[in-house]
Amino acid sequence: MTVPYSPGLEGVVAAQTEISEVDGQNGRLIYRGGYLIHEVADRSFEEIARLLWTGELADDAQLRDFNGKLAARRALNGAARAALAGLPADADPMDALRTLLSAQGAGPGCPKPSLDDAIAATAVTPTAIAAYYRHQRGQSPVEPRADLGHAANFLYMLAGQDPDPDRVRYLQSYLVLLADHGLNASTFTARVICSTGSDLWSSVVGAVGALKGPSHGGAATAAMNMIERVGGPDKAERFVIDTLDRKERLMGFGHRVYRTYDPRAKILRDLCREANREFYDVAFRVEEVALRELLARHPERPNATNVDYYSAGVLAAAGFPKEFFASVFAASRMAGWTAHILEYVAKDGRIIRPASEWIGPDPEKRAAVLTT
Amino acid sequence: MTVPYSPGLEGVVAAQTEISEVDGQNGRLIYRGGYLIHEVADRSFEEIARLLWTGELADDAQLRDFNGKLAARRALNGAARAALAGLPADADPMDALRTLLSAQGAGPGCPKPSLDDAIAATAVTPTAIAAYYRHQRGQSPVEPRADLGHAANFLYMLAGQDPDPDRVRYLQSYLVLLADHGLNASTFTARVICSTGSDLWSSVVGAVGALKGPSHGGAATAAMNMIERVGGPDKAERFVIDTLDRKERLMGFGHRVYRTYDPRAKILRDLCREANREFYDVAFRVEEVALRELLARHPERPNATNVDYYSAGVLAAAGFPKEFFASVFAASRMAGWTAHILEYVAKDGRIIRPASEWIGPDPEKRAAVLTT
Repeated sequence: MTVPYSPGLEGVVAAQTEISEVDGQNGRLIYRGGYLIHEVADRSFEEIARLLWTGELADDAQLRDFNGKLAARRALNGAARAALAGLPADADPMDALRTLLSAQGAGPGCPKPSLDDAIAATAVTPTAIAAYYRHQRGQSPVEPRADLGHAANFLYMLAGQDPDPDRVRYLQSYLVLLADHGLNASTFTARVICSTGSDLWSSVVGAVGALKGPSHGGAATAAMNMIERVGGPDKAERFVIDTLDRKERLMGFGHRVYRTYDPRAKILRDLCREANREFYDVAFRVEEVALRELLARHPERPNATNVDYYSAGVLAAAGFPKEFFASVFAASRMAGWTAHILEYVAKDGRIIRPASEWIGPDPEKRAAVLTT
Repeated sequence: MTVPYSPGLEGVVAAQTEISEVDGQNGRLIYRGGYLIHEVADRSFEEIARLLWTGELADDAQLRDFNGKLAARRALNGAARAALAGLPADADPMDALRTLLSAQGAGPGCPKPSLDDAIAATAVTPTAIAAYYRHQRGQSPVEPRADLGHAANFLYMLAGQDPDPDRVRYLQSYLVLLADHGLNASTFTARVICSTGSDLWSSVVGAVGALKGPSHGGAATAAMNMIERVGGPDKAERFVIDTLDRKERLMGFGHRVYRTYDPRAKILRDLCREANREFYDVAFRVEEVALRELLARHPERPNATNVDYYSAGVLAAAGFPKEFFASVFAASRMAGWTAHILEYVAKDGRIIRPASEWIGPDPEKRAAVLTT
């Protein structure tokens, strides 16, 4: 049986999973174990990563032990340090992350993905991002500190000083909220790669490449660019109407799956109001006008605010320049990518090799004649 | 509408393409323009890459010009050289290739994939492979020579001396035959990555990771390992029967799409007989017994010899150690990956975001209680 071409594989079930579920009809995001996103939004990133990997929320002793395992794997190895030193200062941070993770993971053979690999890749990602952030600024990397949590250490490695607790909280919330989201394009990439029997590092390096795209991990930066262009809450109405009149796209609205408000966007909106009032005042007004205008112009389309929109304000408040937003997204989604990889491997999944439809000329009818 | 889960996406049409077509029923492989693989098997790799990218076979002047463009892009840049220097000597060559391509492609922003990118990635791949081959052996990289063709220069950079013309011919045939093959897992990976608006380098780095898997690009090495274990043509019968009696898998037989003999395997078999008689004598006898036994035991399964089987003998004859087989596969398939990326981008393809089926607990019925 052949299933006809569905552009973007929309509606094609490409995985059975218990890692997370985007219930778009009801605006729910469910994490492994059956937890609704708002129920676990105030947990630590480490706890959520462990939940996605193992299916269980840890007790205090388990969590201390687990935090120690992650903290022990934060350092860049020699291969990653050498790759970092050679990178141009104007590279996209996602190119840097892709390269450093690939170097960090270079080793013998093709090991079967393991929980240990998932821990190692997740632990080192902030180190790679922070090291490249400093490399761009002509600064040496700051070595990770094992006495800090994942989010706090991430900010510490950026600036080389103890991070502000509020900023740590903003970052931690973001990391928890974005950690997994069904079969998005980067997670699907990771699954396709590991389906060939390839290793975890190859799979996450590919996922970083997919997340880099402006339609995926690049969307928060685009939202920030847009909010910066608006120029103030009083200019929001004009900006939105002009943009839509020019048939241009507003960044931060609409999603393939959600038919109602993204539950993560709700939480991030509240956090953004607290964390980044300047951004929020513009963004909230743009949102009001945008939702009104989009409904008036395209009543048939579900056009709720997506997660990228208020993410931009929260990430900026946590201390990241907008060029780094996608890489922080990767630091969060690494937990989900690796959970999906472990799930695929545990189920002994088949190689993902879809069919294609030939739209070229028939060899017997082609116009060109071969003249050798 | 939702299409139910098909493990491995078997039978799901995930692309419309004019790059290549695997006509499994009739044992045909069609390259862009409608050319059957045997019609173009004696062309140069450059000519086939250009065909896949542009849809046209070049005339002599066009080809000279095009060869010059490829030759001009062969050198590793500073980022790739630095990454190479830091790699451990025991890394899998595919990890090295993944890392060097990622470093080579690190640059500002997220450029839209272009023919120029396709040329650059394809031109530099043999240089990266040869440089790591020498790095493993404690030798400095050999700089590429613009006066040699793609295949000849590849072998030149391995050994640092003028390559044997027969070996160049073996390698060239292999590169042409493997250059594209419908929607295999690595090509699909590249399409998923670029579907987010990501760049060409991110897409091919992900494809390298997918090709690394033992079920994909690792299969020729596994075939070589098997032929080495047989120990001689007279031991083939016993080896095959024992392997199948132990319910173990014979490497090099069966394919998701072909229902009859893979047309590339036919050409490689003839080439292998000429190029690597020692391998061929064992492999041919193993093949005879294997096809007979597989038919007797599983008459319902199509179990023809696949492309990896005789590839192993041809690649060894061209001068590659078996650990490098998958990377040479990548050097060939780079033409196809990049052609698919350019096709996807030209058609302004949608983001590939399939659906998933939730098999975890319902949040309202889950056993665990949250205790904060």
